[in-house]
Amino acid sequence: MNVNRNIKVTVWNENRHEKTHKKVAEIYPKGIHGAIADFLSQESDFEVRTATLDEPEHGLTKEVLDSTDVLIWWGHIAHNEVRDEVVDRVYDRVLNGMGLIVLHSGHFSKIFKKLMGTTCNLKWREAGEKERIWVVEPGHPIAEGLGEYFEIPQTEMYGERFDVPAPDTLVFISWFAGGEVFRSGCCYNRGRGKVFYFRPGHETFPIFYQPEVQRVIKNAVRWAAPVNGPVPHFGNVKPLENI
Amino acid sequence: MNVNRNIKVTVWNENRHEKTHKKVAEIYPKGIHGAIADFLSQESDFEVRTATLDEPEHGLTKEVLDSTDVLIWWGHIAHNEVRDEVVDRVYDRVLNGMGLIVLHSGHFSKIFKKLMGTTCNLKWREAGEKERIWVVEPGHPIAEGLGEYFEIPQTEMYGERFDVPAPDTLVFISWFAGGEVFRSGCCYNRGRGKVFYFRPGHETFPIFYQPEVQRVIKNAVRWAAPVNGPVPHFGNVKPLENI
Amino acid sequence: MNVNRNIKVTVWNENRHEKTHKKVAEIYPKGIHGAIADFLSQESDFEVRTATLDEPEHGLTKEVLDSTDVLIWWGHIAHNEVRDEVVDRVYDRVLNGMGLIVLHSGHFSKIFKKLMGTTCNLKWREAGEKERIWVVEPGHPIAEGLGEYFEIPQTEMYGERFDVPAPDTLVFISWFAGGEVFRSGCCYNRGRGKVFYFRPGHETFPIFYQPEVQRVIKNAVRWAAPVNGPVPHFGNVKPLENI
Amino acid sequence: MNVNRNIKVTVWNENRHEKTHKKVAEIYPKGIHGAIADFLSQESDFEVRTATLDEPEHGLTKEVLDSTDVLIWWGHIAHNEVRDEVVDRVYDRVLNGMGLIVLHSGHFSKIFKKLMGTTCNLKWREAGEKERIWVVEPGHPIAEGLGEYFEIPQTEMYGERFDVPAPDTLVFISWFAGGEVFRSGCCYNRGRGKVFYFRPGHETFPIFYQPEVQRVIKNAVRWAAPVNGPVPHFGNVKPLENI
Repeated sequence: MNVNRNIKVTVWNENRHEKTHKKVAEIYPKGIHGAIADFLSQESDFEVRTATLDEPEHGLTKEVLDSTDVLIWWGHIAHNEVRDEVVDRVYDRVLNGMGLIVLHSGHFSKIFKKLMGTTCNLKWREAGEKERIWVVEPGHPIAEGLGEYFEIPQTEMYGERFDVPAPDTLVFISWFAGGEVFRSGCCYNRGRGKVFYFRPGHETFPIFYQPEVQRVIKNAVRWAAPVNGPVPHFGNVKPLENI
Repeated sequence: MNVNRNIKVTVWNENRHEKTHKKVAEIYPKGIHGAIADFLSQESDFEVRTATLDEPEHGLTKEVLDSTDVLIWWGHIAHNEVRDEVVDRVYDRVLNGMGLIVLHSGHFSKIFKKLMGTTCNLKWREAGEKERIWVVEPGHPIAEGLGEYFEIPQTEMYGERFDVPAPDTLVFISWFAGGEVFRSGCCYNRGRGKVFYFRPGHETFPIFYQPEVQRVIKNAVRWAAPVNGPVPHFGNVKPLENI
Repeated sequence: MNVNRNIKVTVWNENRHEKTHKKVAEIYPKGIHGAIADFLSQESDFEVRTATLDEPEHGLTKEVLDSTDVLIWWGHIAHNEVRDEVVDRVYDRVLNGMGLIVLHSGHFSKIFKKLMGTTCNLKWREAGEKERIWVVEPGHPIAEGLGEYFEIPQTEMYGERFDVPAPDTLVFISWFAGGEVFRSGCCYNRGRGKVFYFRPGHETFPIFYQPEVQRVIKNAVRWAAPVNGPVPHFGNVKPLENI
Repeated sequence: MNVNRNIKVTVWNENRHEKTHKKVAEIYPKGIHGAIADFLSQESDFEVRTATLDEPEHGLTKEVLDSTDVLIWWGHIAHNEVRDEVVDRVYDRVLNGMGLIVLHSGHFSKIFKKLMGTTCNLKWREAGEKERIWVVEPGHPIAEGLGEYFEIPQTEMYGERFDVPAPDTLVFISWFAGGEVFRSGCCYNRGRGKVFYFRPGHETFPIFYQPEVQRVIKNAVRWAAPVNGPVPHFGNVKPLENI
């Protein structure tokens, strides 16, 4: 029973733009991870901490991951600096039940590509155009508290074809002023874990301060929290019936 | 946020076998609806009531349905006695967010067939054989608290081909001693509502007293509870952009 | 083996606008059914005929349906005039393997709503705006011969939320100049049959003369053609193993 | 249009059991690849060749893969000997449209795990027990020509939980005498390519001589053959509309 159970959230950020781009540092003075941790911490059922690329083991030690229910991932220019052993550790935890929420440019992270089994490639354009995100599955928990659509006044465009497996559930589709569409909210079951890809969120636009974006991420944390289901036993087994 | 929100459950039962079959009355002295309401009432976040076919409007007045979050449905020999206007009322409520859990022989109910768009036909046999229900999606909320499988010592067999649309999520597959298999736990989104079909549960076997069966139904109630998502506006609309 | 097997296509049209609207009659002098039959007839593996609402039994007698592999459906203002017994006949044939392609305003036809189990409602606007249809599943047979997207210069808008079950496969998503998106190419398995909903196609725009639209419909006919798979046997069965 | 287009099939086999186990060599004197190539070659629309692990580049040079429409994969004891660069080459070809059919113990091949994004682990038992494979999607092209089920008299058991993403389409479910079930026919879209996992096929049982098994593999070849759909263009793009 999920009621009254605290959810331990770790917000991971590459945290490189914040150090090198003045504009990013101005918009996100605590880093993107800090901004996300701030609004998540307002929820009484969340316990929130952060981790970043330049910490030892990228801040994702076995101890941290073992005590993480949902991991939020933001990366962009340093995907290749994430060490494979840490990627494998995150991967094992997802398959064993940890939720994973991948934001925006995280579509090209090693962990997302490994879990999807595809290139996760897409079209993109940085023109500060308008995005309108439509809810196509209004009964889904991730749509809780939203209207039929919400708008992001200025954003980077991501366009189809988005090279991912068809999501187990498609929650959002984006409309862009420049003429493209995108599957912007994609739910996947992988092993015993849940993965949610959410498109919005750019380093030079204040997108993570938008109430609707925050709402979606909060909803996604609750949706992706581990379930205490069966732990499969793999390998050689004896028959359960007389053969 | 779902935490601490009570879920209003209405357990609907045809309640005919209980009146005419001594054996059924012995196994389920309060009726199948009574047995289900009993174990659901042990959950502190559920408010449970019952309704039956022979009540006025089958106990499913507009007032009852409007105040129902999740409706549980058991019927068998009197599907055709359920009036179409009540079926339509339940249908409208499901599409507007009410959860619906259809049990066992409810596969042939008017409401389930109407929501599925198919015959919902299947193979069956009453031989009291063993069923073993395997969890194939161990991270799904409906699998919470279960082992890798559970067994029903004696049951009616339902076998494939089960003529339903492929479920949005398939949670359980049954093995039967007589040689058949069955998709026994099927999740569907329909409109803003959620539908769960759960195979076990027969009138002449004490299946609703089994802890695993009770656990699944409790889990399904929480999974199917309405989400406060957007209410779609249909029909003619003005453009959101200059055309 | 599908090679060299002819596909019998019946194009059904309500055929009312053509009789009452001069503009429609000018664009589609043979009726929408005639225009569709014309381009389908160019394919050497198709045998094409038409049927319309005002024919006896709407042109869909048992004999016609029994010898139809794929039925194409166009209706708009007279959905309610289609008799339930004919709808049931079409429904039975789909569940027994006949393909069904539902075009544009056919989303509100009795047969489509019955097969979907939902209202099939949506947003709409007649402003002659531009639509751009993006292929999101480029390996699907219905995308054969297309580019990454194609445009319809002037069309009626259909917008989300489209109240249908999530398609088994989503092939197209539309972008509209007015700011909406739409799941425009939706594949469904129902019983032994296949259903394809295709959004484009309006009575006052010459959409069915566009090569890309014709290509999609041709592809869909081949995709939806019946497969000689097993005919399920339903009902009471004997065990296949000793119990 | 698929009609009359030849499909180039390459049958890949590890081909190790055949060299070291007398029993395997007796059952499959031409190797498992030879047995599969033999029955596929009877189809007039297939061009068939084979490739094995110990050939240079495992027989899967760029030239071979570029001229392969559908690749069939059988491996068991030497998955780790398949070089990563060849795996990457196969992976790129699948995402660019080549069909891939993975047989039995190939579930643990590098290529299948890479495309699935999960462990692909399962339960197993070598007891020569009976398997009954039920068709759950009778309208699917891979079920063409089959009955409602077929049996394999003696086989190795594979049991759930099968740690793969939920298939885009589930075609077969297996029943085993020892009490397990398995999702035995799983269709996936990955990139522009199609992947089919088919469970039956063991080295010490003459399973690939069974007509039903041969039929499924032939059907799967036709289903997985490339479609001439759009080739997505990824990366930075200009707007299609004035922003």
